[in-house]
Amino acid sequence: MPLPEIPLITEKLLAAKKAKGLSFVDLEQIVGRDEVWLAAVFYRQASASEEEANKIVTALGLDASVIKELMSYPAKGLGDVVPTDPLIYRFYEIMQVYGMPIKEIIHEKFGDGIMSAIDFTLDIEKEEDPKGDRVKVIMNGKFLPYKKW
Amino acid sequence: MPLPEIPLITEKLLAAKKAKGLSFVDLEQIVGRDEVWLAAVFYRQASASEEEANKIVTALGLDASVIKELMSYPAKGLGDVVPTDPLIYRFYEIMQVYGMPIKEIIHEKFGDGIMSAIDFTLDIEKEEDPKGDRVKVIMNGKFLPYKKW
Amino acid sequence: MPLPEIPLITEKLLAAKKAKGLSFVDLEQIVGRDEVWLAAVFYRQASASEEEANKIVTALGLDASVIKELMSYPAKGLGDVVPTDPLIYRFYEIMQVYGMPIKEIIHEKFGDGIMSAIDFTLDIEKEEDPKGDRVKVIMNGKFLPYKKW
Amino acid sequence: MPLPEIPLITEKLLAAKKAKGLSFVDLEQIVGRDEVWLAAVFYRQASASEEEANKIVTALGLDASVIKELMSYPAKGLGDVVPTDPLIYRFYEIMQVYGMPIKEIIHEKFGDGIMSAIDFTLDIEKEEDPKGDRVKVIMNGKFLPYKKW
Amino acid sequence: MPLPEIPLITEKLLAAKKAKGLSFVDLEQIVGRDEVWLAAVFYRQASASEEEANKIVTALGLDASVIKELMSYPAKGLGDVVPTDPLIYRFYEIMQVYGMPIKEIIHEKFGDGIMSAIDFTLDIEKEEDPKGDRVKVIMNGKFLPYKKW
Amino acid sequence: MPLPEIPLITEKLLAAKKAKGLSFVDLEQIVGRDEVWLAAVFYRQASASEEEANKIVTALGLDASVIKELMSYPAKGLGDVVPTDPLIYRFYEIMQVYGMPIKEIIHEKFGDGIMSAIDFTLDIEKEEDPKGDRVKVIMNGKFLPYKKW
Amino acid sequence: MPLPEIPLITEKLLAAKKAKGLSFVDLEQIVGRDEVWLAAVFYRQASASEEEANKIVTALGLDASVIKELMSYPAKGLGDVVPTDPLIYRFYEIMQVYGMPIKEIIHEKFGDGIMSAIDFTLDIEKEEDPKGDRVKVIMNGKFLPYKKW
Amino acid sequence: MPLPEIPLITEKLLAAKKAKGLSFVDLEQIVGRDEVWLAAVFYRQASASEEEANKIVTALGLDASVIKELMSYPAKGLGDVVPTDPLIYRFYEIMQVYGMPIKEIIHEKFGDGIMSAIDFTLDIEKEEDPKGDRVKVIMNGKFLPYKKW
Amino acid sequence: MPLPEIPLITEKLLAAKKAKGLSFVDLEQIVGRDEVWLAAVFYRQASASEEEANKIVTALGLDASVIKELMSYPAKGLGDVVPTDPLIYRFYEIMQVYGMPIKEIIHEKFGDGIMSAIDFTLDIEKEEDPKGDRVKVIMNGKFLPYKKW
Amino acid sequence: MPLPEIPLITEKLLAAKKAKGLSFVDLEQIVGRDEVWLAAVFYRQASASEEEANKIVTALGLDASVIKELMSYPAKGLGDVVPTDPLIYRFYEIMQVYGMPIKEIIHEKFGDGIMSAIDFTLDIEKEEDPKGDRVKVIMNGKFLPYKKW
Repeated sequence: MPLPEIPLITEKLLAAKKAKGLSFVDLEQIVGRDEVWLAAVFYRQASASEEEANKIVTALGLDASVIKELMSYPAKGLGDVVPTDPLIYRFYEIMQVYGMPIKEIIHEKFGDGIMSAIDFTLDIEKEEDPKGDRVKVIMNGKFLPYKKW
Repeated sequence: MPLPEIPLITEKLLAAKKAKGLSFVDLEQIVGRDEVWLAAVFYRQASASEEEANKIVTALGLDASVIKELMSYPAKGLGDVVPTDPLIYRFYEIMQVYGMPIKEIIHEKFGDGIMSAIDFTLDIEKEEDPKGDRVKVIMNGKFLPYKKW
Repeated sequence: MPLPEIPLITEKLLAAKKAKGLSFVDLEQIVGRDEVWLAAVFYRQASASEEEANKIVTALGLDASVIKELMSYPAKGLGDVVPTDPLIYRFYEIMQVYGMPIKEIIHEKFGDGIMSAIDFTLDIEKEEDPKGDRVKVIMNGKFLPYKKW
Repeated sequence: MPLPEIPLITEKLLAAKKAKGLSFVDLEQIVGRDEVWLAAVFYRQASASEEEANKIVTALGLDASVIKELMSYPAKGLGDVVPTDPLIYRFYEIMQVYGMPIKEIIHEKFGDGIMSAIDFTLDIEKEEDPKGDRVKVIMNGKFLPYKKW
Repeated sequence: MPLPEIPLITEKLLAAKKAKGLSFVDLEQIVGRDEVWLAAVFYRQASASEEEANKIVTALGLDASVIKELMSYPAKGLGDVVPTDPLIYRFYEIMQVYGMPIKEIIHEKFGDGIMSAIDFTLDIEKEEDPKGDRVKVIMNGKFLPYKKW
Repeated sequence: MPLPEIPLITEKLLAAKKAKGLSFVDLEQIVGRDEVWLAAVFYRQASASEEEANKIVTALGLDASVIKELMSYPAKGLGDVVPTDPLIYRFYEIMQVYGMPIKEIIHEKFGDGIMSAIDFTLDIEKEEDPKGDRVKVIMNGKFLPYKKW
Repeated sequence: MPLPEIPLITEKLLAAKKAKGLSFVDLEQIVGRDEVWLAAVFYRQASASEEEANKIVTALGLDASVIKELMSYPAKGLGDVVPTDPLIYRFYEIMQVYGMPIKEIIHEKFGDGIMSAIDFTLDIEKEEDPKGDRVKVIMNGKFLPYKKW
Repeated sequence: MPLPEIPLITEKLLAAKKAKGLSFVDLEQIVGRDEVWLAAVFYRQASASEEEANKIVTALGLDASVIKELMSYPAKGLGDVVPTDPLIYRFYEIMQVYGMPIKEIIHEKFGDGIMSAIDFTLDIEKEEDPKGDRVKVIMNGKFLPYKKW
Repeated sequence: MPLPEIPLITEKLLAAKKAKGLSFVDLEQIVGRDEVWLAAVFYRQASASEEEANKIVTALGLDASVIKELMSYPAKGLGDVVPTDPLIYRFYEIMQVYGMPIKEIIHEKFGDGIMSAIDFTLDIEKEEDPKGDRVKVIMNGKFLPYKKW
Repeated sequence: MPLPEIPLITEKLLAAKKAKGLSFVDLEQIVGRDEVWLAAVFYRQASASEEEANKIVTALGLDASVIKELMSYPAKGLGDVVPTDPLIYRFYEIMQVYGMPIKEIIHEKFGDGIMSAIDFTLDIEKEEDPKGDRVKVIMNGKFLPYKKW
């Protein structure tokens, strides 16, 4: 279970972003897409349209060959069964600890089915708090009821 | 990797709840705690105070011996490395697909550290939508910066 | 990686079905649902409505307490990372061998997204053939495009 | 469990196909073989005859040395025990959720044996639907009864 | 990875066989099936016809309820990813050490395809040898060429 | 669990063999060793004597530096816990399905001990059959009784 | 990876031995077999002859039904991929750390082949030492050269 | 679980040793350390003092830069959970089969504690035997009693 | 990877301790051993002397048969490869994140060797702090230098 | 489970440190941070501020490009599920053997919650002792009580 390898294209994009002094919030302004989704494009977990890819490439000053790469559909995922990075692991832990309770509540509210991870958005907000700032992660997925046949 | 086994106490609590015709939202009213947290107590992933346990046991019509059990601290977790239940798996998938993008954005917003899964709350809301209702999961955890020494 | 354990309720249902001399096709007639879906209810991978559960229980001559069980939502899955049963393994092998080709073709036909395994049906047909009968498995799932945000 | 690595030859074939602006359906016309089977050849999960390899290489404008490679028999499979790519994972999930029900139905219809994954074809069709297009995957494998001796 | 658990029915069959003082070769005479196949029936890896089950049950002096069990189709396999029993491990080792050479030779002799493990027989012979007796295992499986489509 | 990696020396040997148009049966004639054993030498699972290595290198027209490599003893095995290649997997399946029955029969015939995988030969024969040719794999290993002390 | 489960028969034997106040060295005198081999019989990793089983059963004051059990051949091994018990783990660590060096030296001294773990004895001696007593483990296995064919 | 990778420095050392025609026994004479320990230094599982490293490097005719490398402390181990090499596997098997018996005997002789794998030596001897030479592996580790506090 | 199972004896000891209203600190006074070591005895990870076992059993009001059990040496460990309990996982995370840095510093301070986990003590202290109390874990193990031979 | 790979930047830093003849204690003086934390920066498990990175780079005589790297936040962890290096393994073993006892004591002292591994320091001290020096590892983490909601 090796650490997740970062694709070359991701390193290139992150380096260009650092060189340009741009944050993902800046890119949000430029591309018109959420910062998390944009980071997902950088890590090749999401695919950009030609227009979106164009804006990203222009903003970062990269050459046009990158556009095609941002539009492709590589295999997704971390490639790390149980993540060892502490930040990412906490999401694994939430699934371990709150998985069954979440299942119970969703079934009670919606019946048999799941929350889609495809028709899905994820936002991250910073909530300032004098006792220590808080990270707010808002997941929003379509409920998909099981089809019967 | 067998399926997660449900503890006997959980089955007992769920059966009593069903017999009483109570939803977790009803229990939320009675105990004064969120429905997700209550489901976590049912699955022995969270521990109740004596007062909270008392209210739960009274509402469900169970005998007093259950109180002590709800106040204890068993080992937590699903015991299922990669969950096979489709609803729970989607949270594993979100971690696989969006883990690195989330890491990137949190570090950009907060610096080095993590979102706590302990000083943490999780809410589930039903968002009605004519194109299909949506599940909203709101996670809220304290940002913990890495201490240097 | 132990062999998948069959739940007690499943054994009870299969025994009653055998005792009554009913095939799943017979049950298809009685309940008005596909035989594969019915077998999934037997193995607690799908949940019946009260009406469906009623019909199943009546047909099998079981007592009414089974109805509630067929309407519940247990954790799904085999609980067997790589299945060792040869018949089930072949589906794992198809995923191993044809996974990337299928991904390639679906992306070419539909763009970025997945075939839903929830808004999904699965039929099994017997195709008679003098050189040896053939098993036809027809999967039909809604295409879910990745949402951007 | 690293992500599946794409062989160099596959990358070369996909790049040439993109450069020529050919879809797999176009190749189906040219080679006289199904698009899924052709994608399987690209991913080195199937082996072409000399004639088929010739047609592919000519269509893609690659040099003749590729022909021998397309005719060889490398080790097959993804090399990813539980796939993390969401599209491919859904097929793993179908095996997890519907594995035992499928086994039950096939045994009821055919007796003891399996569906071959070798004497086997797999087709993917796009079913247009106003509520969202559907992916249809048709598997067709010879039933192989267990030999007794 | 626990040791393979022996099903209750297997223990019952083996105990009756020991009590009757029968060897598998004796059963071979009685049932008219090979000793290895019979041992596979005992371990519920193969299914008997009603006639075969009858002969086995009569020979062992068991009651008729066992007949149905021997005719059923339980999930197959050891349930032990890498077997720790030295005798069984040697077959795992043969696959590890000679897997690729066997693949090379079969492809050279037959083209792309596999040896069936379903249309398959396995015999074990004792070869007496002054330097130490030898175990001869003869596997005989139909060659299944990959279908193209 | 990545796919087995083929050592560079193996690729070199296979390429030279293909270039010379030699089959393993041809090499059997030249070297005086069985084709399976020769393929095992190619995959570095068996070690040649100087004389054997010499004959192989001469037949393939490779330079003398290869001789030393064929005489060395690298770590053996596929490096693939559960093989995903369908041809090799069938041998894993045979071990899963017939492992305990084989153990039972060998113990009945020989007492406590194992079949050696070292003092061992493996032959592959093609059995022509109008209903489909058959692969015959003959394993022959010395029985090793457990020593007591 | 659960802890190794101790078979019931082992618990019975150990309890009887403790009740009789016998050490394994005492049993060595009684049975005429080494203490390690006797412990292996207790843990059902070795099989006794009728005579040996008789002596053990008599010495421990157990009833005759135990004799047959000690003569049987259950599946061997710990059933614990990486042992967590510190004493047993050290042997795993020795294999991890000294595995390749041992391989190198054995090949240099003997050529290609292995040390048998079947035609094999293992003794444990206590070496008194003022700086702390030492455990001496002496393994003695027949060298088995790889057969060529 | 890929095969153990041999570090570059190990290959360099082994190649130089072969070129010089030295055996590990020869090196034992030159360095004044046991052959197994020396092989462990080659595989970077043990660290040499400056004087020892000097002698090795001089004997092999390598340049002085190698000295520092032989004195460093890299991470130890095979990196192969269950070794597939048959020679190394036999040591894994001995741990699987004799692990609990060894634990039993050591506890009986020494009380609670372990055999150290650090304050530890390992010797390999060739025992000539007309029925086949034998490998003798002598492990000698300090007994470490569990400290109480 | 199921959750760690708590042995029956542990449950009995913990229940008796709760019934008597004793803390581990109270037991520390009674037995004259550290609270962590005592908890390790409860979880059967450490073995008591007859005198210590006597004191524990008397304090808890259990019957004398428990004494022998507390003096025995069962297999140690959690039996959970990667622990899912958040409290225990943090120690796994510390090993993941600080493992190599700790190795570096210990080698710099002590040379090649390890910190013993056998000749070892572990204390837990509560450090009051207005910003949140702190847990102090003090590990103290003998340095064991690698023996050369 | 391959051995942990050391990042290139780590090798560069360690080589420069060795060339300068600096110990981590020397760096502690120069940077004003603990030696363990500094080793964690070297292994890219902790991130330096610009000022700290500057001091490190200057002390080691490296060029300024390294500063940015030391300030970045790569994925953390060993990437080795069960570590095979004996020194690191001992910390895994401590978690296996003392995990539940530690959990018991922390819950008794603090209630439900965990010791933070983020708001956390770790010190290593050498305790001289005539019977053998001792390694003292002091972990100090904030207690985080589970939040209720």
